[in-house]
Amino acid sequence: MLDIFNGIRDDLLIVEEELKQILETKNPLLETSTSLLNAGGKRLRPALSILGAKFGNYDLEEIKPLAVALELVHMASLIHDDVVDDSMTRRGAPTVKAIWGNGISANIGMYIFAKSLTLIAKYEDNPLISKVSAHASIKMCEGEIQQISTSFDSGQGVKDYFIRVKRKTALLISASVQLGAVACGAGRNIHLPLRRYGNCIGMAFQITDDILDLEADQKDIGKPVGSDLRQGIITLPLIYAFGKSGQRDRLLELARQVEKDEGEVQEAIELIRDCGAIDYSFKVARKYIEKSKRELTFLPDLPAKKTLYDIADFIDVRKY
Amino acid sequence: MLDIFNGIRDDLLIVEEELKQILETKNPLLETSTSLLNAGGKRLRPALSILGAKFGNYDLEEIKPLAVALELVHMASLIHDDVVDDSMTRRGAPTVKAIWGNGISANIGMYIFAKSLTLIAKYEDNPLISKVSAHASIKMCEGEIQQISTSFDSGQGVKDYFIRVKRKTALLISASVQLGAVACGAGRNIHLPLRRYGNCIGMAFQITDDILDLEADQKDIGKPVGSDLRQGIITLPLIYAFGKSGQRDRLLELARQVEKDEGEVQEAIELIRDCGAIDYSFKVARKYIEKSKRELTFLPDLPAKKTLYDIADFIDVRKY
Repeated sequence: MLDIFNGIRDDLLIVEEELKQILETKNPLLETSTSLLNAGGKRLRPALSILGAKFGNYDLEEIKPLAVALELVHMASLIHDDVVDDSMTRRGAPTVKAIWGNGISANIGMYIFAKSLTLIAKYEDNPLISKVSAHASIKMCEGEIQQISTSFDSGQGVKDYFIRVKRKTALLISASVQLGAVACGAGRNIHLPLRRYGNCIGMAFQITDDILDLEADQKDIGKPVGSDLRQGIITLPLIYAFGKSGQRDRLLELARQVEKDEGEVQEAIELIRDCGAIDYSFKVARKYIEKSKRELTFLPDLPAKKTLYDIADFIDVRKY
Repeated sequence: MLDIFNGIRDDLLIVEEELKQILETKNPLLETSTSLLNAGGKRLRPALSILGAKFGNYDLEEIKPLAVALELVHMASLIHDDVVDDSMTRRGAPTVKAIWGNGISANIGMYIFAKSLTLIAKYEDNPLISKVSAHASIKMCEGEIQQISTSFDSGQGVKDYFIRVKRKTALLISASVQLGAVACGAGRNIHLPLRRYGNCIGMAFQITDDILDLEADQKDIGKPVGSDLRQGIITLPLIYAFGKSGQRDRLLELARQVEKDEGEVQEAIELIRDCGAIDYSFKVARKYIEKSKRELTFLPDLPAKKTLYDIADFIDVRKY
């Protein structure tokens, strides 16, 4: 668990236990798959929903199904990601897909997603919860589909990228912190700033993720550097470099090339780095971080608020 | 549209229009995929939900979101099926997977499933609807996963088969007719017999499907004969033949063999047919049909009841 979650550590552990129970099954295949999934993970979405709830009439029992459901939706998307990426490892462990193949992965993804529904269904008195979570889930799939359908398409601009990232990542993170507050009865003056905060840190989170893909060691993020380039995902640093690189034509050629060898991936990474694209992207992420913090000023001064600041700072400097 | 749906034809066409609108998107890739999906299909689940609703205070506006949602859940499962089966065609048209690959399929499946949630969320005053539909969806995925994980496993008995079929097929069909009634305010004395009726015709539907896989022409069902055998799916006729075939050992060997050539598939089909497995399976399906009709006797004599009888008879003799 991240140190910044120390203040909600006990509650997060209870959520973790619940998550484990929900994923427990008698089917040996499902069992292996879900335990694979269950290992690791920052539990950012459950943590955010707990922190959001602190701004209402906090009650762990009230928030627990939501916290678990949000992590399940995230897990389902990770499994589908692995089908798309042909990833064989995630967080250093083999993926569900690597062990069982695409058919199982697609179904386990949907199974886990469906499990989240039974949890969300518990909030029948609070229809905003099912509406916002369903919307976030749909947009997440749309973002993912958009990412696949525009892979190797170097004609994408910064705006396309932002729309995609909002859908793929930011909306679920935003829903987590907003719905935490909603579940515990907080009013619009509370849950709307939290939603905007969540959107901003979600955007920053994905941008830093895209930067890390060009920078981090495999041992830190558990996957090889340059995997976005290999899959043809056009990320912010690359879009910037298309405009600024002295070797623009070569970079475009490399980006569009469906099969790249190790040397070509390295060459593309160096072209991206050399034109200042990493610095630029960090600056964009930092702007989102600053904006997220401005939203926090609308909220009462609770210990949870300090943690939300810490999360923003963590995303700003994270290396994994 | 099936002739037996003539009595609800206008309402089914309105549901069809709604389905089309829900699947409409500006993303060209999603557009192509969903229009592929949208073509064909018996619309059994929407029809059943409309018929169930006739036993309550019938209101098409009330039932429409449910009818569409149920078809979406079914579509999502079809897409995932195609990932599992490596099917390149369905109903004679190319599958989403054949055109776009597994990654897109997995995500489009989840996208379509998520779309169903926003529709189900409209029944916030009627929590049974979200509970039953979520349960049916989860079990459907479990059934699918069970099917994959037990493929080529000739140790399965009739009981394993029935559990799997109930999950994979019967529960969603059962939920369709039950929840139609629930959405229009019918009481337990109505929606419980409808649920049991739905379960029985769902079981019969899958059993006849499994028989058709050994019998039908490709032009009738839009897929090659023997595809279950090729995929290692252990169906009722095969389980029966394991017990009764004079060439049991050869059949077991063929069933377990992961790669089979055309001749071996034909040989297995003949061994299955020769021992009376088709007749036996039809008899089992017919028992479910009879049981489904007995449930109908608990219901008031409305025109919809006649259609439910017709559907049961259609499943009994269907060739596609």
